[in-house]
Amino acid sequence: MIFTKFDRYVDRHARSFTERLQNLCRMPSVAARATGMRAIAETVEQSMQRVGIGTRTFRVGSGYPIIYGECGSGPKTFVFYGHYDVQPVGQLTAWSNGPFSATILDGKLYARGAANSKGDLIARLAAVEAYQKTFGKLPVTLRFLIEGEDGLGSPSLYSFTKEHPELLKADGCLWDEGARDTKEIPVVSLGFKGITFLELRAFGARSDLHSKWGTIVPNPAWRLVQALATITSPKGVITIDGFSSYVAPISEEDTEALKLIEIDEAALKREFRIGGWVRSMKGQTLIKEHIFGPTCTICGIHTGHTEAGAKTVLPSTAMARLDFRLVPDLTAEIVVGLLREHLDVRGFRDIEIIELGSAPLAKSSARSRIARAVVESTAEVYGRPAIVYPMDPSSGPVGAVCGVSQPPTPVASFGTAYAGSNPHGPDENIRIDDFMQSIKLVGRVLHKLAEPRSKPSVDALLSEDNRPTAPLPKTKPAEK
Amino acid sequence: MIFTKFDRYVDRHARSFTERLQNLCRMPSVAARATGMRAIAETVEQSMQRVGIGTRTFRVGSGYPIIYGECGSGPKTFVFYGHYDVQPVGQLTAWSNGPFSATILDGKLYARGAANSKGDLIARLAAVEAYQKTFGKLPVTLRFLIEGEDGLGSPSLYSFTKEHPELLKADGCLWDEGARDTKEIPVVSLGFKGITFLELRAFGARSDLHSKWGTIVPNPAWRLVQALATITSPKGVITIDGFSSYVAPISEEDTEALKLIEIDEAALKREFRIGGWVRSMKGQTLIKEHIFGPTCTICGIHTGHTEAGAKTVLPSTAMARLDFRLVPDLTAEIVVGLLREHLDVRGFRDIEIIELGSAPLAKSSARSRIARAVVESTAEVYGRPAIVYPMDPSSGPVGAVCGVSQPPTPVASFGTAYAGSNPHGPDENIRIDDFMQSIKLVGRVLHKLAEPRSKPSVDALLSEDNRPTAPLPKTKPAEK
Repeated sequence: MIFTKFDRYVDRHARSFTERLQNLCRMPSVAARATGMRAIAETVEQSMQRVGIGTRTFRVGSGYPIIYGECGSGPKTFVFYGHYDVQPVGQLTAWSNGPFSATILDGKLYARGAANSKGDLIARLAAVEAYQKTFGKLPVTLRFLIEGEDGLGSPSLYSFTKEHPELLKADGCLWDEGARDTKEIPVVSLGFKGITFLELRAFGARSDLHSKWGTIVPNPAWRLVQALATITSPKGVITIDGFSSYVAPISEEDTEALKLIEIDEAALKREFRIGGWVRSMKGQTLIKEHIFGPTCTICGIHTGHTEAGAKTVLPSTAMARLDFRLVPDLTAEIVVGLLREHLDVRGFRDIEIIELGSAPLAKSSARSRIARAVVESTAEVYGRPAIVYPMDPSSGPVGAVCGVSQPPTPVASFGTAYAGSNPHGPDENIRIDDFMQSIKLVGRVLHKLAEPRSKPSVDALLSEDNRPTAPLPKTKPAEK
Repeated sequence: MIFTKFDRYVDRHARSFTERLQNLCRMPSVAARATGMRAIAETVEQSMQRVGIGTRTFRVGSGYPIIYGECGSGPKTFVFYGHYDVQPVGQLTAWSNGPFSATILDGKLYARGAANSKGDLIARLAAVEAYQKTFGKLPVTLRFLIEGEDGLGSPSLYSFTKEHPELLKADGCLWDEGARDTKEIPVVSLGFKGITFLELRAFGARSDLHSKWGTIVPNPAWRLVQALATITSPKGVITIDGFSSYVAPISEEDTEALKLIEIDEAALKREFRIGGWVRSMKGQTLIKEHIFGPTCTICGIHTGHTEAGAKTVLPSTAMARLDFRLVPDLTAEIVVGLLREHLDVRGFRDIEIIELGSAPLAKSSARSRIARAVVESTAEVYGRPAIVYPMDPSSGPVGAVCGVSQPPTPVASFGTAYAGSNPHGPDENIRIDDFMQSIKLVGRVLHKLAEPRSKPSVDALLSEDNRPTAPLPKTKPAEK
């Protein structure tokens, strides 16, 4: 086996790699709290240099550094995305150990950021080291793109993609989201939905009034409610004029891919403590909606007085935050344009729409080089085919990174986490075994990215002959 | 003139009465902050005893004392309501002088609580003193009812009305709300709307989720918006099934009374900074709606994440607070029952309705003894007829106090404030001249309450012959 030597190197350095991860996890790089960001950026840059990556640091305004690095050579070029910042720790008392103690217990490394995504960052760097030590040199050109603002919505990265598109031109992109699901099946995503995040505002009197004026003074809260109610139906269907006509039909390839996905509906309903899904969907209808359905989610509404204590006021303003998850062929511009028109023709010209931010979708074919390399390597390392999401229902800057060229750079994403990783909660953790497997997985991906491609191996994987003979276990999508 | 001696007594004691008011205003009796409540209750009780009122103090649980007092004698009995607590002071820096310094400047006494309603309390006690000193004894039995929880929604007072209805039986009730308007015309109210304050709640997953789940997990914010949107029309009409059939038609007496009221629409629109009124109403339609229209006001909505910073969540709960102002013949029970039924038949059984509190309306005829006494006395003291609101658009415990008997005790309300009093804001103040006139007004009311009534003096006041020959000045309603 060609990877025997590689795997032996990884196993022999398990302790060293784990210590490097612990070292990184002990640095409290909470972007939202601006803690230790300079120190970790330096450490990450040194870690990259240590495995032979030539680095450059970019700062956009007062943002946290983007560490760009190149290594390897070869006719094909790939972007490896990562981030060094972590989520806020939340309630300290909810943690069994300090969130930056990087304690290892029962084979699990506990730390804020272990799963999201320092484990992935170190695994990718460890794989580069192991590959070079065992194969001699990298067979492809790698462009590392490591940011520090994942928790802030990646403002610097968006600027970077506009200012340095030449540094992001690539034959594929490897993202760092993904996890093994409740049935231990690894989940690979070949794209992410886009998003546009809006605030709708309605205005009334110049300050909150005594609610006795409710008879005659316009109430912006009612105004907003009446406007919102026209945007979706009581059954949760988006009813913005013309909206559905912009949603691309699902391709045959994707339709086939959907058939291989199952959601553990009962387990998820228990976890969320809900009685049923929207429109009582189930089975394939549910999966199709979850992966290819656009959304219009009320993320928040605020108006008037809502704290403890009775206070009967007529509010002066009302605001709602909506996020739309974008599927092919929806764009932020289309959504905002349609919504404005929809509100205007219904007499809601007074409702202000403020664009808080947006990200384009990213979606690649399962036939792309990066997708094949990841899917095939996952099957080899884990001994079972991955669940392949044609598009992850979440969103991020991936569409901006992959959108610097036309056609967009294909993307594939997987991560070191598992179903119990709790990436945004207390006791975030990864399993050391998963971490080691992740290094081995990245090594194989590196190798396959350079391989001449002859047979359509993904198609083979998806063909009838290669389906598992036992029914595919039900799975739940990664929650990261 | 029968009141020459009385007025002279009041004028001679102007300094003493003003000092008593300053003394009370220097006590920081903010019920919501629990500051100095015991001290002021004792001072108020002593002030009542000083003018010959026999007092009893009632406490409901840990509430602030209700000071009940009786004085005078005569076949007729009247309740005089007052309160000794004040609103929170808000931003201290917004005050020109300390809110409890009771500074007098240019004839105005500045203090939190001066207008709402320590001026009224001292004026009523001063009038009792002056009346006894000049007429010998009170011609009616007075029952003082002084509470300390006006700013808290009067919970103790509601209990008191249920536990001691015998102490509240009376031929009329004098309330303490009212002010001279922007045109210096005194405003008298002959009732107050009722109110019921509700919270509507919708529930989704057990905690806020990543909004990528918006495709398939029910969103309680949408649920609430869709339910709310059925409760009113986009034009602001209450569309709860059967609601309008419970609203009593406006009586002929009230229709006539409405004709004497005008609202200074332009000034109010400027003050509120609004472009127009609900449904573009104006003139008599606007006045009728303001005084006799029921309301359903969204006082607040909260769901999801609404603070600074983008956070795309699928909320787990959503809540709205609604207050309904009740007009004849609406009751809280009717409103809640109709709303429940209305939501149920539309499939919104999952929306929870929580009753936060309610107060019945109070409304009396302009022909009642208390109404006539107040309206006639106002005309005498101010030299012009008052603006008479058949019902004030605001609400309070007055309906509970007056509802201990059937038919309810008639009520009339006026106050010492003026249009510049700013009773809930900084630099709250009353004019010393208004305070002195208020004492004189109360003296005349006391006298008239005992008079044998022969001619329908209010009707005479309202008849064509007695209308001012100049067009009635436009006025704005009191804002207290």
